[in-house]
Amino acid sequence: MRHGGDLARAEAAYGRPRQGWLDLSTGVNPHPYQLPPFPSSSLTRLPEPPELESLLRTARQAYEWPEDAPVVAGPGAQAMIQLLPYLRVRGSVAVVGRTYEEHAYVWARAGHEVTICDMQTAEDADVVVLVNPSTPFGRTTSPEKLQKLAERLAEREGLLVVDETYADVAPEVALGGRLASRGVVVLRSFGKFFGLPGLRLGFAAGDQEMVSELAGELGPWPVSGPALVSGLTALADEAWIATMRLRLTVDAMRLDGILAHAGFTGLAGCDLFRAGRHPRAAAVHESLARAGVWCRRFDDRPDCLRFGLPGDDEAFERLDTALKAAFEKAL
Amino acid sequence: MRHGGDLARAEAAYGRPRQGWLDLSTGVNPHPYQLPPFPSSSLTRLPEPPELESLLRTARQAYEWPEDAPVVAGPGAQAMIQLLPYLRVRGSVAVVGRTYEEHAYVWARAGHEVTICDMQTAEDADVVVLVNPSTPFGRTTSPEKLQKLAERLAEREGLLVVDETYADVAPEVALGGRLASRGVVVLRSFGKFFGLPGLRLGFAAGDQEMVSELAGELGPWPVSGPALVSGLTALADEAWIATMRLRLTVDAMRLDGILAHAGFTGLAGCDLFRAGRHPRAAAVHESLARAGVWCRRFDDRPDCLRFGLPGDDEAFERLDTALKAAFEKAL
Repeated sequence: MRHGGDLARAEAAYGRPRQGWLDLSTGVNPHPYQLPPFPSSSLTRLPEPPELESLLRTARQAYEWPEDAPVVAGPGAQAMIQLLPYLRVRGSVAVVGRTYEEHAYVWARAGHEVTICDMQTAEDADVVVLVNPSTPFGRTTSPEKLQKLAERLAEREGLLVVDETYADVAPEVALGGRLASRGVVVLRSFGKFFGLPGLRLGFAAGDQEMVSELAGELGPWPVSGPALVSGLTALADEAWIATMRLRLTVDAMRLDGILAHAGFTGLAGCDLFRAGRHPRAAAVHESLARAGVWCRRFDDRPDCLRFGLPGDDEAFERLDTALKAAFEKAL
Repeated sequence: MRHGGDLARAEAAYGRPRQGWLDLSTGVNPHPYQLPPFPSSSLTRLPEPPELESLLRTARQAYEWPEDAPVVAGPGAQAMIQLLPYLRVRGSVAVVGRTYEEHAYVWARAGHEVTICDMQTAEDADVVVLVNPSTPFGRTTSPEKLQKLAERLAEREGLLVVDETYADVAPEVALGGRLASRGVVVLRSFGKFFGLPGLRLGFAAGDQEMVSELAGELGPWPVSGPALVSGLTALADEAWIATMRLRLTVDAMRLDGILAHAGFTGLAGCDLFRAGRHPRAAAVHESLARAGVWCRRFDDRPDCLRFGLPGDDEAFERLDTALKAAFEKAL
């Protein structure tokens, strides 16, 4: 499976050393939260239960979950995605797609019957999985609608999984206070919005039983010391969060302008990435790659490219120049 | 389940703030490997497959595994311990014990029939789990014997799990080059010997199928950037490793002297912790705790206490003084 951030592949295919690339293939914020050096005790000791509890409280506040919401932390949202399929008896799973491919992959691997479908069809499945906002086109579903769906699923012992990996830049679609303790599990990624995916930190919240089983499967020390102290600091920094949301909105608009100018249409996504269609998408991807700009393409959507946000003026200009050159070639 | 390092519990029970404790309740090396600050890219990017491959190669060399040994890295040896029970059909599991309690716990939780027994009885089980050297008394089993056991188990599709969490200080008992690609899985902990358990890094190696399934279950980004760069550096530092082994041997002898003087008998363990029997173990534990020295006791072995290594002269003297006071009271 292809993931963003696979610079090693780009390096191998185009012979350009790692440092030479402008990597726009991920949805990671290019303005990482600035951390002080990690205290040595975060490395030399195992995190203890009260510290972990404190991290969960901070997450509840940051994500506006109910005060008594069951929450568990793990080494990345991906760690929860990997485990969830084993916590349900085998059944039908509807992934509302097209979206992050790992969801369908892990549920199928665990023996569930997976279909990728639209929201309407999804409702009949035992488990409905949805990324909100989704990738690559940022499709969103309202929290009211999701709350009702969760209630209907709960009535018949079903489960709604909402992957809110990109919801930090779209807080209006997050379940937040509507999160119930039954029938729904919400996943949050720390690394994408705070620009620190290497730390490996994510959360799952909601359904009491599922959260409790996730905690059991993750074991006594589910997150590293560095991830724990970073989460405690960054998730509580409301000023940084508010300012960063504005900054990313402005950056995403600037990116849209550049992409539109280069012939992309149907621009959509969220404030961490933008996707669009281009009549010669494959040629543009190739031309950008030769110029050292690495964006995301999709085998099943050959007309579409996705771009993460350039991190500074120089990066914006480099993309603009490379796109103009690609556009001229493509004509 | 009680674990070492639970200073929060000590704090709550005895009202002494965290900083006031001499924590000897773990088997973690008190002389941590000194790391330079983590490069920012280890936080702002996801580790990529070639970096992970490089870490696995370094682990193969450090642990003297065959060059083609299947190896997987994860967020702590505990993460592997949690997953292994799900990769086998339910059957009989013999944990050679008494030992690290998580093993029996996770296999039983996954529905296996677990017995805790001696090496002789263990052989008939589908899965044999053994910690080598073990805790608290450092029981060891020779690699020759384990290799033969692994071969016998492999013949009938059985599995031997060898937890070598403490084998860094007893390299002569490690399976090393005898590791086969069938019928045996070896677990290694990075944090204990390098004094960095907060990083969460561990390895599993051996049986091709199990290692491959572990890798699948752990997903595409199984270790954090900080864990990855630390492992690459520390595991390759042969001089540090050799010097540290000597230092810990000397420290363990010094600890034995203090414990023997305080009336402990049957002293055993490994060079990361020492355990012994004491006719008034419970009273000694209580008296030490009141003096701010936190050692490990065991509900099922009330006559036994386990001590990690004090980190410097001051810590050795503090333990010595507290033990003398406890001993006088206990008389």
